[in-house]
Amino acid sequence: MRNWLLPEYIEDVLPAEAARVEQLRRSLLDLFKVHGYQYVIPPMMEYMESLTTGIGHDLDIATFKVVDQLTGKLMGIRADMTPQTARIDAHMLNNQGVTRLCYAGSVLRTAPDGLARSREPLHVGAELYGHAGVESDIEIQRLMIKALHAVGLSTLYIDVSHVGIFASLLEHAGVAEEQEQELYAALQSKDQSAVRELGKNLNQETLAALSSLTELNGDVSVLEEAAKCLPKIEAIQQALRDLKSVGTGLADLDVKVCFDLAELRGYHYHSGIVFAAYAQGYAGPLARGGRYDEVGAIFGRARPATGFSLDLRGVVSSLPAAEVAAAIFAPAVADVSLSLVVEHLRSQGQVVIQELPGQESYRAELGCDRILVQQNGEWVVVAAPAL
Amino acid sequence: MRNWLLPEYIEDVLPAEAARVEQLRRSLLDLFKVHGYQYVIPPMMEYMESLTTGIGHDLDIATFKVVDQLTGKLMGIRADMTPQTARIDAHMLNNQGVTRLCYAGSVLRTAPDGLARSREPLHVGAELYGHAGVESDIEIQRLMIKALHAVGLSTLYIDVSHVGIFASLLEHAGVAEEQEQELYAALQSKDQSAVRELGKNLNQETLAALSSLTELNGDVSVLEEAAKCLPKIEAIQQALRDLKSVGTGLADLDVKVCFDLAELRGYHYHSGIVFAAYAQGYAGPLARGGRYDEVGAIFGRARPATGFSLDLRGVVSSLPAAEVAAAIFAPAVADVSLSLVVEHLRSQGQVVIQELPGQESYRAELGCDRILVQQNGEWVVVAAPAL
Repeated sequence: MRNWLLPEYIEDVLPAEAARVEQLRRSLLDLFKVHGYQYVIPPMMEYMESLTTGIGHDLDIATFKVVDQLTGKLMGIRADMTPQTARIDAHMLNNQGVTRLCYAGSVLRTAPDGLARSREPLHVGAELYGHAGVESDIEIQRLMIKALHAVGLSTLYIDVSHVGIFASLLEHAGVAEEQEQELYAALQSKDQSAVRELGKNLNQETLAALSSLTELNGDVSVLEEAAKCLPKIEAIQQALRDLKSVGTGLADLDVKVCFDLAELRGYHYHSGIVFAAYAQGYAGPLARGGRYDEVGAIFGRARPATGFSLDLRGVVSSLPAAEVAAAIFAPAVADVSLSLVVEHLRSQGQVVIQELPGQESYRAELGCDRILVQQNGEWVVVAAPAL
Repeated sequence: MRNWLLPEYIEDVLPAEAARVEQLRRSLLDLFKVHGYQYVIPPMMEYMESLTTGIGHDLDIATFKVVDQLTGKLMGIRADMTPQTARIDAHMLNNQGVTRLCYAGSVLRTAPDGLARSREPLHVGAELYGHAGVESDIEIQRLMIKALHAVGLSTLYIDVSHVGIFASLLEHAGVAEEQEQELYAALQSKDQSAVRELGKNLNQETLAALSSLTELNGDVSVLEEAAKCLPKIEAIQQALRDLKSVGTGLADLDVKVCFDLAELRGYHYHSGIVFAAYAQGYAGPLARGGRYDEVGAIFGRARPATGFSLDLRGVVSSLPAAEVAAAIFAPAVADVSLSLVVEHLRSQGQVVIQELPGQESYRAELGCDRILVQQNGEWVVVAAPAL
């Protein structure tokens, strides 16, 4: 075994790409900040109870577990930062009104999420607690779109859905847990014949509605169609009105909004409007999120909640590489006036590399396209001569 | 069990402190950048072989282990980023001349390192590869001092030593591994009588030299005294000359340099000059580092190496809290001219929080000391009236 080999789906981020990650990380946190989202740093590791309770089986499987040597209890390395942020809102901050939080950090996953995806995504996200109205769903989606624009992605598509439609249909029809899981899976794969087969014991209205969900996707006209063909259950009609408000609320942004009523990503975790953003030329969603009003309850303080996150490492790996910053080479000369010039250049943001004895022949490797030389008693920056 | 309790020595960083961490993290990475240190992001997790081989037993015990579900092999969550950076230099970049790298990231430890220390330090550091001369030791120590000044620490002390002195003494006397360990422990606790007892089988010159190490600490005069009283072994005399060069190389900085020849922190990992920085009013070292020329060899490419790191989370927790940024409250009014003003203020770095319906009474909780109001058809920022 070669010691320098990394595990599969685990990678270093090397200078050119790391500089881009850092630059975009700052842009995103600055963007969140001016919108009132406060930065928090949740820990890499918590007790399993707080990391995954109420969040579902998928996240449990994705979480690396370790034993706490101080207590013998099971801890997990975080696989998602949203429940951590919900815990901070519920217990650490304890605000009565709205709390807006943001974060940026690595999460670890036991297995890659889809083909060629990293097991160490860099999650950057924003969460809004304490407001149940559609206005906060809109605020979060607008922020996500601005964030994607800030990282340089244009021609965005956003898929919006509402898990409450499916949930209300099943609740109204009194469907049992096991059948619900099966119907959910069939719906996710848009398999209309499976939906019909699995739901054949249901009443005709529910079955027709479930079946129609697989076809209810497209622009805002889908919502009008859904209002007609879905049962006149108030929760469903309200969900459709909220989706329409989202469409209106995003209308001035440079984004195409699509509604897809069969898309129930994170159904066991989310409780209302859910969404995912795509960009032309990129496979898979670049950012996603939604409402999860029930998660805070496991920390003893249920609060309305919505938020989004993106994998900045994944986004950057699809962007063109950044150019490496050019540097100035300073000779290894002990001279106070040279030191002053070097420090002045650095204070202006210029990269200045001071020669170490014997290193001049490697200055091109260091990216030094200019050198400091003494002319008429003054140190000046000139183009680097060929070596 | 309450779900929101965190494990011992594991903590959230909440907004006021997190803002300070982020600000200083940026300052440090910017400082490293203008000195030619390129940012890299090593992974949170690697195979145990690459994380801890050659680095010693202490780091192995400190490392959380997990099984890779894809291969069945043992992986570790990093407890130190220095070996990772050495691996990147040795195998990923493969430069022939000097490589300068920097990093900022969480590491995890199975147990706290001393009283009241976190199990999740935020390591920020810089490493220099490919240069064996004392000039690179000086460059790294100067950078560390500038970094500590940048985070707002003044009245700094730096303790400098050289592990080669002890190593050369024992090698010259042909001391076996087990006795070396015991002498090392006695020396670390400055226990002169234990040193004499443990070394009574050694020749008189070696024993006298080992014994004198416990007293050789203080300013630069210690080096002259050491040159006289230690054996005239060339490696030892060269180490003393190098330490003297460090003293000269740091003379223009606002720092007090102390030499302590019995201080061998990281003896099994380091190979030359080692150092630690302290500040008045703070317990324990704030930053430390040293030369570790042998570590790259385990990755198949031995390169001279020196570097330092500090725990930014620990440093910030000892600093006074930052004030929370004040915000501007904008009413929930759908008005294009208001949106333009809000976006303009945000583009200037002002925090503007747009009201969500029903939230105006909580604006003080959000830190809004100003509000946007319409006066003569213009939206203007005014001091927030009492609620």
